Amino acid sequence: MPPLSPQTLERLRHVSTATLCTQLFKRGLRNVFLEGVGRLSSGTANLVGPATTMRNIPAREDLDHLGVFENPEHPQRKAVEVTPPGHVLVIDCRGEKRAASGGMILMTRLMVRGAAGVVSDGPVRDSHEIATLAMPVYCAGASAPLNLIRHHAVDIDVPIGCGGVPVYPGDIMVGDAEGVVAIPAHLADEVAADAAGQERLEEYVLERIAAGAPLRGTYPPNEQTRADYQAWLKERG
Amino acid sequence: MPPLSPQTLERLRHVSTATLCTQLFKRGLRNVFLEGVGRLSSGTANLVGPATTMRNIPAREDLDHLGVFENPEHPQRKAVEVTPPGHVLVIDCRGEKRAASGGMILMTRLMVRGAAGVVSDGPVRDSHEIATLAMPVYCAGASAPLNLIRHHAVDIDVPIGCGGVPVYPGDIMVGDAEGVVAIPAHLADEVAADAAGQERLEEYVLERIAAGAPLRGTYPPNEQTRADYQAWLKERG
Amino acid sequence: MPPLSPQTLERLRHVSTATLCTQLFKRGLRNVFLEGVGRLSSGTANLVGPATTMRNIPAREDLDHLGVFENPEHPQRKAVEVTPPGHVLVIDCRGEKRAASGGMILMTRLMVRGAAGVVSDGPVRDSHEIATLAMPVYCAGASAPLNLIRHHAVDIDVPIGCGGVPVYPGDIMVGDAEGVVAIPAHLADEVAADAAGQERLEEYVLERIAAGAPLRGTYPPNEQTRADYQAWLKERG
Amino acid sequence: MPPLSPQTLERLRHVSTATLCTQLFKRGLRNVFLEGVGRLSSGTANLVGPATTMRNIPAREDLDHLGVFENPEHPQRKAVEVTPPGHVLVIDCRGEKRAASGGMILMTRLMVRGAAGVVSDGPVRDSHEIATLAMPVYCAGASAPLNLIRHHAVDIDVPIGCGGVPVYPGDIMVGDAEGVVAIPAHLADEVAADAAGQERLEEYVLERIAAGAPLRGTYPPNEQTRADYQAWLKERG
Amino acid sequence: MPPLSPQTLERLRHVSTATLCTQLFKRGLRNVFLEGVGRLSSGTANLVGPATTMRNIPAREDLDHLGVFENPEHPQRKAVEVTPPGHVLVIDCRGEKRAASGGMILMTRLMVRGAAGVVSDGPVRDSHEIATLAMPVYCAGASAPLNLIRHHAVDIDVPIGCGGVPVYPGDIMVGDAEGVVAIPAHLADEVAADAAGQERLEEYVLERIAAGAPLRGTYPPNEQTRADYQAWLKERG
Amino acid sequence: MPPLSPQTLERLRHVSTATLCTQLFKRGLRNVFLEGVGRLSSGTANLVGPATTMRNIPAREDLDHLGVFENPEHPQRKAVEVTPPGHVLVIDCRGEKRAASGGMILMTRLMVRGAAGVVSDGPVRDSHEIATLAMPVYCAGASAPLNLIRHHAVDIDVPIGCGGVPVYPGDIMVGDAEGVVAIPAHLADEVAADAAGQERLEEYVLERIAAGAPLRGTYPPNEQTRADYQAWLKERG
Repeated sequence: MPPLSPQTLERLRHVSTATLCTQLFKRGLRNVFLEGVGRLSSGTANLVGPATTMRNIPAREDLDHLGVFENPEHPQRKAVEVTPPGHVLVIDCRGEKRAASGGMILMTRLMVRGAAGVVSDGPVRDSHEIATLAMPVYCAGASAPLNLIRHHAVDIDVPIGCGGVPVYPGDIMVGDAEGVVAIPAHLADEVAADAAGQERLEEYVLERIAAGAPLRGTYPPNEQTRADYQAWLKERG
Repeated sequence: MPPLSPQTLERLRHVSTATLCTQLFKRGLRNVFLEGVGRLSSGTANLVGPATTMRNIPAREDLDHLGVFENPEHPQRKAVEVTPPGHVLVIDCRGEKRAASGGMILMTRLMVRGAAGVVSDGPVRDSHEIATLAMPVYCAGASAPLNLIRHHAVDIDVPIGCGGVPVYPGDIMVGDAEGVVAIPAHLADEVAADAAGQERLEEYVLERIAAGAPLRGTYPPNEQTRADYQAWLKERG
Repeated sequence: MPPLSPQTLERLRHVSTATLCTQLFKRGLRNVFLEGVGRLSSGTANLVGPATTMRNIPAREDLDHLGVFENPEHPQRKAVEVTPPGHVLVIDCRGEKRAASGGMILMTRLMVRGAAGVVSDGPVRDSHEIATLAMPVYCAGASAPLNLIRHHAVDIDVPIGCGGVPVYPGDIMVGDAEGVVAIPAHLADEVAADAAGQERLEEYVLERIAAGAPLRGTYPPNEQTRADYQAWLKERG
Repeated sequence: MPPLSPQTLERLRHVSTATLCTQLFKRGLRNVFLEGVGRLSSGTANLVGPATTMRNIPAREDLDHLGVFENPEHPQRKAVEVTPPGHVLVIDCRGEKRAASGGMILMTRLMVRGAAGVVSDGPVRDSHEIATLAMPVYCAGASAPLNLIRHHAVDIDVPIGCGGVPVYPGDIMVGDAEGVVAIPAHLADEVAADAAGQERLEEYVLERIAAGAPLRGTYPPNEQTRADYQAWLKERG
Repeated sequence: MPPLSPQTLERLRHVSTATLCTQLFKRGLRNVFLEGVGRLSSGTANLVGPATTMRNIPAREDLDHLGVFENPEHPQRKAVEVTPPGHVLVIDCRGEKRAASGGMILMTRLMVRGAAGVVSDGPVRDSHEIATLAMPVYCAGASAPLNLIRHHAVDIDVPIGCGGVPVYPGDIMVGDAEGVVAIPAHLADEVAADAAGQERLEEYVLERIAAGAPLRGTYPPNEQTRADYQAWLKERG
Repeated sequence: MPPLSPQTLERLRHVSTATLCTQLFKRGLRNVFLEGVGRLSSGTANLVGPATTMRNIPAREDLDHLGVFENPEHPQRKAVEVTPPGHVLVIDCRGEKRAASGGMILMTRLMVRGAAGVVSDGPVRDSHEIATLAMPVYCAGASAPLNLIRHHAVDIDVPIGCGGVPVYPGDIMVGDAEGVVAIPAHLADEVAADAAGQERLEEYVLERIAAGAPLRGTYPPNEQTRADYQAWLKERG
């Protein structure tokens, strides 16, 4: 895939996941919003970036002991070192809530390396420190036990499930205060453009509704409202 | 039903759902607190008002597409326009967490129309904006996908289940920081009065406990404590 | 069991539950972090103390009515009065989310009596007031209905399950922002010492990672990093 | 809706719900198979018939006592008396597993009145007797407590959810050993015809696979296999 | 408690758990039917007997190893040896489905010792052999891992929860094809008598319904039906 | 891995999964029994064979349509054609219960090709026909919708999770009436030998218990019982 265009990147930074879900629904895609995955920190900028994926399977007691981390090729550690700058590391934890996907040291390393963020359908440890990082981290809350009690990391950059949603390497992940959407890479440009347009219109509609307009004719807009919107748009340049 | 008396309304604004649960338990009603429904915003005044209800069933792909909103009689949109001022719109989402009950535009319209608030056992989208509204909204968190991917709105003002609790049109909904209770309409006056009395007594008990009194004799109060409470009450007028 | 040594107590006040989980994992203990139990308040000091336990079974309508609290020997009330200063009252609610473990008056009494804190795998009522107490309370969120609609308190100071974890009377409970760990009493000293050491080392590692060091050789530390760490330690005294 | 044509009825008696799911999937309908609903008896003929629906909400202790059955207009009892011969009574129990949808007497009355069968997403009581009835009953297993401990029957012949699937009055319900499918009434004829055709072809494919043919070219059939199938069809008349 | 009278025992052998639930509901008891507990074997006689209870908490790796069974006082083994003839061993497994409550050797020992049966809200191992025993065993299906991977047996003959229902030592357990009911000991005689009466009446009602009588007037019976029933009863002696 | 020795294969055909779980527990492996996976048919011989694995991720509407099966390299179809004779096809369905892992045609092809059996943590369609096959199939029950509504098959012969258990290609899968165990390949010989020994001893113990011996001294066996067992063994040759 070619890298995200600056225009698409910029648009995706300012649209909501709600709007993106509607745009993807229009294109027949219903299962795009990750279930049970929330933002740790309270930042306001969206997470945006292509997915680098990592896959876990259930742990086995004889294979998953602390010694495995001596090997720098261990997939969890390697994933941290190979996620390209601007990418989002997306981790398949099978929705397992009883062990951490990772902790402060790994998240810090990802941030230092320039990752756009992290998305996991498992929890993290050191959650309160991670919440202070500049890099957005989305996960299933907090859990103190280390990954090894439940997880064996196996693969990097294969298609995975995360939060019940398919995520292919290179899919564009967008996260806001609501959660995270996975946009198939080939749709990113058009979805971003249409989402930006939809939000502009809804901004106008909300103004009208707040001023007392009824839903009928305003939301969804009828021809008159659409004409008024065009005028409003022109006014603001 | 006659409208809520101003006295009952005032009392319900200041008692907790915990106290209301105890008063309803005394009358044999155990299943009155909505499960999995929390307040989005951090306001301090209670939500209070009679229920206007809306019912959803699972969506069907051929019936539930974006075009349905062109029809202003669509039950979701109509519910927003017919909820009387002072009422609470209560939405049955079958506890479905994977789609939004509604978003900012509908909530704003409800607020402008004077609704007392919204209660849903599904999530909302645009949750961070909704959290800033003056009108209290209780729901099952945040989810970006639009209602149509899971819901087909069918009925307005029929008895429903919400958060596992039966809600009849006109039931008095009360919400505080803990969550939401449904009070059968015919019990509202007496429950409000007894709840206010119970809270006054517990305020006194808490003072005593904080000052070092043991539970025995204080909580629940024995005759001496009750006499002291009467004196305390008199003192404060 | 002898009381916690001041040194162990001090160490446990400053290590994370994540570190404690790792230390217990090293000793073959995987199931030590309570599932679904979070801190209500936002305090920064850890909860630390030996467990005093209370056990609930499901309620029975004829046995569990408001009158039972007239009896000061009722186990829920008695548990509050017998928890020794410095101890943590740990309550087995079978993970039941639909009724409160207790409310503001009982929590206040525990605090006045000097309890170190409360841990329950059920919710509490009056949650927003409890969140303001000086004493840390860990629970499964908020629920307004009183305990009697679901629980019958039966035993004090017997081994229980809480959040899926075995808790024996005298086990050392430690809680931080992530949640709660139960440390078998006989392991408390050595686990506290090793945890403090691990955290000191990780503080150094994090400094290095934040400064741009790669995971390889730094985390886990190779011999060079360990040597540098010793120097760093000496420097700070 | 006009009644089911005899040809469609006959076809639906002999196709599997698996085939019907595939035919509905081809038409964009994914959510048509009821989750958690199985056949009690071991009969071999399919359940087929249009849906008559009944809706339950959660019970309220003061409204749902044994006395309510004195009223022959009670919706649960009335539903039994108004389900037309040949129809399937479909009951929305909100997936509640802890109380029965009904028992032997009601099921017997339905059978005597000529109902085609019963479908519920709750359990039944008297399950072993019901399993011996000539009329097929699909439900969520067995549970002894009467409906009143959890359910308040409210409506007859309104759109409902059952097993997570939308069911509209008149939808064609088909049940086999696997479970139950709801076919939108207007699609019944064409889906029945195509399903019968698909099954005939798959019968041939299975014969070939059992005889050692590889999947490639056989399943799905390529042109040669389709031609051979036409010959095979002709042979059998 | 005095032992069960032979008359009560005989009655309970022939009434259904559905009828018992209705009789207990009449007395205000709603939570009496064990959730998720089914009969392994296909026998037709009811399980009946007073409860001897055993309680498990979650296992701890250092305490729950195979060596513990060397101790004949281990509570699981002791429970098997102390359950009195005619009693039912009821085991609290916290609804844990991932380990067995016991296997063929323990069940055989219980049977040889004269136990009336076993009830557990966990699964068993050796389930197919246990299903062939003369003694009825009710459980949550089959699971091969031994109890020690999840359970630590702690207590015998204390009040427990089983299948979400409170079970006190001496409560009368009754099991049929539907599942298991716990009857508080002091209610056993009257509930058994009324249940037997209710079933006799329902036998008559079912006969009438099967013969074409409508629900109205027959179920529940009006005065005429009750009079006819008395005549019918007299006829049969 | 070398193929299973005939002796190990023979032993594994006759030991129970319960015994295998105990042998693996002795070696520190607790998580080896697949949760929620049962045998469809009622055959008596164990399933035994090395695992060939297949992995699914969640479906995406634009990628997972009926047309994909035209491609014979589609991983689901290819998995069927490459599973070596004597192997078990193990399918990771993420525990998803709402779509089938496969149906009669694929199962028949696997059987014709000599597969030892199939294990999936999802359901199958055509379940009643599959239950009649000579080849054992273990799954999560029955569900009619085709795999494409929920699954996208991605990989063959990678490590997977199935029923919450890690399964590596080549692991020895053993299934009996209770369910399925995954044995790490390198442990198969010793576990099979020890399991056979354990079962022989337990056969003797069961004989003794059935004849009235108490648990103490018999189970677990003390020295005398072990000596008697040796004599009993010799007697039978």
